[in-house]
Amino acid sequence: MPNISRKAELMPASPIRKLVPYADTAKKAGVKIYHLNIGQPDIETPSTMLDAIKNSDIKVLEYSHSAGIESYRKKLAEYYKSFQINIEAEDIIITTGGSEAIAITLMTCFNPGDELIIPEPFYANYNGFSCAADVVVKPVRSYIETGFALPPISEFEKLITPKTKGIMICNPGNPTGYLYSREELDLLKALVKKYDLYLLSDEVYREFCYDGKSYVSVMHLEGIDQNVILLDSISKRYSACGARIGAMISKNKQLMAAALKFAQARLSPPTFGQIGGEAALKTPKSYFEKVNKEYVSRRDFVVEALNNMPGVYCPKPSGAFYCIARLPIDNADLFCQWLLEKFNYNQRTVMLAPATGFYSTPGAGMDEVRIAYVLNLEDLRQAMICLEEALKVYPGKKIKATAVSGNV
Amino acid sequence: MPNISRKAELMPASPIRKLVPYADTAKKAGVKIYHLNIGQPDIETPSTMLDAIKNSDIKVLEYSHSAGIESYRKKLAEYYKSFQINIEAEDIIITTGGSEAIAITLMTCFNPGDELIIPEPFYANYNGFSCAADVVVKPVRSYIETGFALPPISEFEKLITPKTKGIMICNPGNPTGYLYSREELDLLKALVKKYDLYLLSDEVYREFCYDGKSYVSVMHLEGIDQNVILLDSISKRYSACGARIGAMISKNKQLMAAALKFAQARLSPPTFGQIGGEAALKTPKSYFEKVNKEYVSRRDFVVEALNNMPGVYCPKPSGAFYCIARLPIDNADLFCQWLLEKFNYNQRTVMLAPATGFYSTPGAGMDEVRIAYVLNLEDLRQAMICLEEALKVYPGKKIKATAVSGNV
Repeated sequence: MPNISRKAELMPASPIRKLVPYADTAKKAGVKIYHLNIGQPDIETPSTMLDAIKNSDIKVLEYSHSAGIESYRKKLAEYYKSFQINIEAEDIIITTGGSEAIAITLMTCFNPGDELIIPEPFYANYNGFSCAADVVVKPVRSYIETGFALPPISEFEKLITPKTKGIMICNPGNPTGYLYSREELDLLKALVKKYDLYLLSDEVYREFCYDGKSYVSVMHLEGIDQNVILLDSISKRYSACGARIGAMISKNKQLMAAALKFAQARLSPPTFGQIGGEAALKTPKSYFEKVNKEYVSRRDFVVEALNNMPGVYCPKPSGAFYCIARLPIDNADLFCQWLLEKFNYNQRTVMLAPATGFYSTPGAGMDEVRIAYVLNLEDLRQAMICLEEALKVYPGKKIKATAVSGNV
Repeated sequence: MPNISRKAELMPASPIRKLVPYADTAKKAGVKIYHLNIGQPDIETPSTMLDAIKNSDIKVLEYSHSAGIESYRKKLAEYYKSFQINIEAEDIIITTGGSEAIAITLMTCFNPGDELIIPEPFYANYNGFSCAADVVVKPVRSYIETGFALPPISEFEKLITPKTKGIMICNPGNPTGYLYSREELDLLKALVKKYDLYLLSDEVYREFCYDGKSYVSVMHLEGIDQNVILLDSISKRYSACGARIGAMISKNKQLMAAALKFAQARLSPPTFGQIGGEAALKTPKSYFEKVNKEYVSRRDFVVEALNNMPGVYCPKPSGAFYCIARLPIDNADLFCQWLLEKFNYNQRTVMLAPATGFYSTPGAGMDEVRIAYVLNLEDLRQAMICLEEALKVYPGKKIKATAVSGNV
């Protein structure tokens, strides 16, 4: 039997999905699980989008253009303009989800062994895509005490070597919910200019900014047009994860021409997803207002409930639909597994994502979990009850250490 | 401005799609183009498939399982059993087109620099996927004179080095239309066993076998279960290229577990495509009988028309919907461009794929083109008239050299 590749051995299993077998067993035993572990919103997909797919009049389901259907890209450019992102259809390659936008970007920009600095905690699959593309991730640590604000630029500079080729951020952030300020982004801009690096920005949560805070895109930063790549997806925007439609966007023509070659090799992105994505651009503003109001209530409820639990601390995020909580526990991986394997409260339990999977630094995030507030308020209430009860009886509970800073 | 990667520089542009700008210009000038250049069938997608998508009752368009919707995989296993391919749902990962099946397979099996032997001419995008995965393609030449039969095993063995990790075939073949016999596949099996290599087989055209010849899958070869990977797609089977649904299939559990990690990183394949793919399994046999009858008529017409042109030779393929023709020309790339840029016959011209793009050996296929007989008979008739007229006036015509062997 031939060996699998070293890359296949090194490739990290999804830290979220690896708990799935435990959840399946619990479900089979009749336990109801509140899924706060994955960014799969319960919000309904806009009917504008689904109806367009249902009413499509396709006779031959053909390949589309490798860069995506032209009419869709043109309308998408208008969508970005409404966020003061000044791009044209030819600056866009429609991808199969944000995932493919990341995969193509890494292959286009990075040589094997090149380094990518990412503030951690970060979306776990960045590790997978980097491994697949032989890119070395250099994490720069952000901390729960500051709500996961941008680390000092000096911390980035410490990591810069001749191999450093780019910086990647997620804004608003998954898993932190942190929203970068204009000032923070200006600092990144100066850094990117100084070392002539690529700046990759995953901005799939731009519609989810709260408390009147404004979304600033890397595309708003002047003078680094040729360095900036915007990574996008419609999965969260329209609660349309299954459409598998994303986008890679840059004003750098040479880069986009090279990226198109990778896009051509895989022929085209999914047609029905594109039809849906194009129609979804007509989604009324009221849809987003309603959704945002819902997420704000959920966030407020969850963050308050968490901070009211003894020894728990959760900073209030300004965007996306995640928060990271520090719990009085020894090991988040064991705790999350224990919740599914050994615990239930009135035949209910909660599935969380251990934050360890979002840190690249070994040992970081051991007492943190990511909570996706993607369930309705009543379910969230039940989930928080489960979590509180679980923390009372979890054998690996830490009594003191984190309880003190839990009042930060 | 940071540099793009070496891989991005080396990545081949699609040899087919690079002619598109010339086609666009011709169209704008009012010239009708017969597209024989791309495997985009004009056959209607089965209504069973499209109706399932239109009638889907989705409220929240969620991620599916990373390996694909379970009910789909179960039914797909039954589909394969109907071809005496004995696999179970857990041996299947649903992919975003056959393209992703290839991409994941290469990443899972090959280290950078590992070598993959492929009989040429081969599907041009194998080059792109290999480049993306840092795999070195070693072509083993097949020839138009034998109808592109499997090259002698001794020619494969000449290429084997310590870096050789696998062999890849396409059966029935794109671009050749060649259908491997049981004997040829048994020879490959012995080779794969002898050197313990992976055997990758792209069998997306299995429904398109003609003249009563039988389709033999690599999955039918006994004793090399752990070496064999079947690469599949529904694009051609149901004329559903835009669905972007394929599959990676193997009985090798370790390999599939590793491949699943790559599948998890990209979350899931497109949901609507999967819904369509599942429903398409109910497509009645009569659909395929009708389609095959149509393709046989087209093939017979095209092959005869080609062989009746002075100096042209085209072996009769037994599968898929392509043939390769040798033309009395100096350079297939220039000729195909000239057809679009400089030629028309009564405001009509034909778009072909230069065979050079399907060979990895420099200089091979210079006087060959691939013709996809994916248009109706009347359009094919017009296209052949255009081609015959074009050959009369093409400035780079070769009078003698190939005309002789054109009567093989």
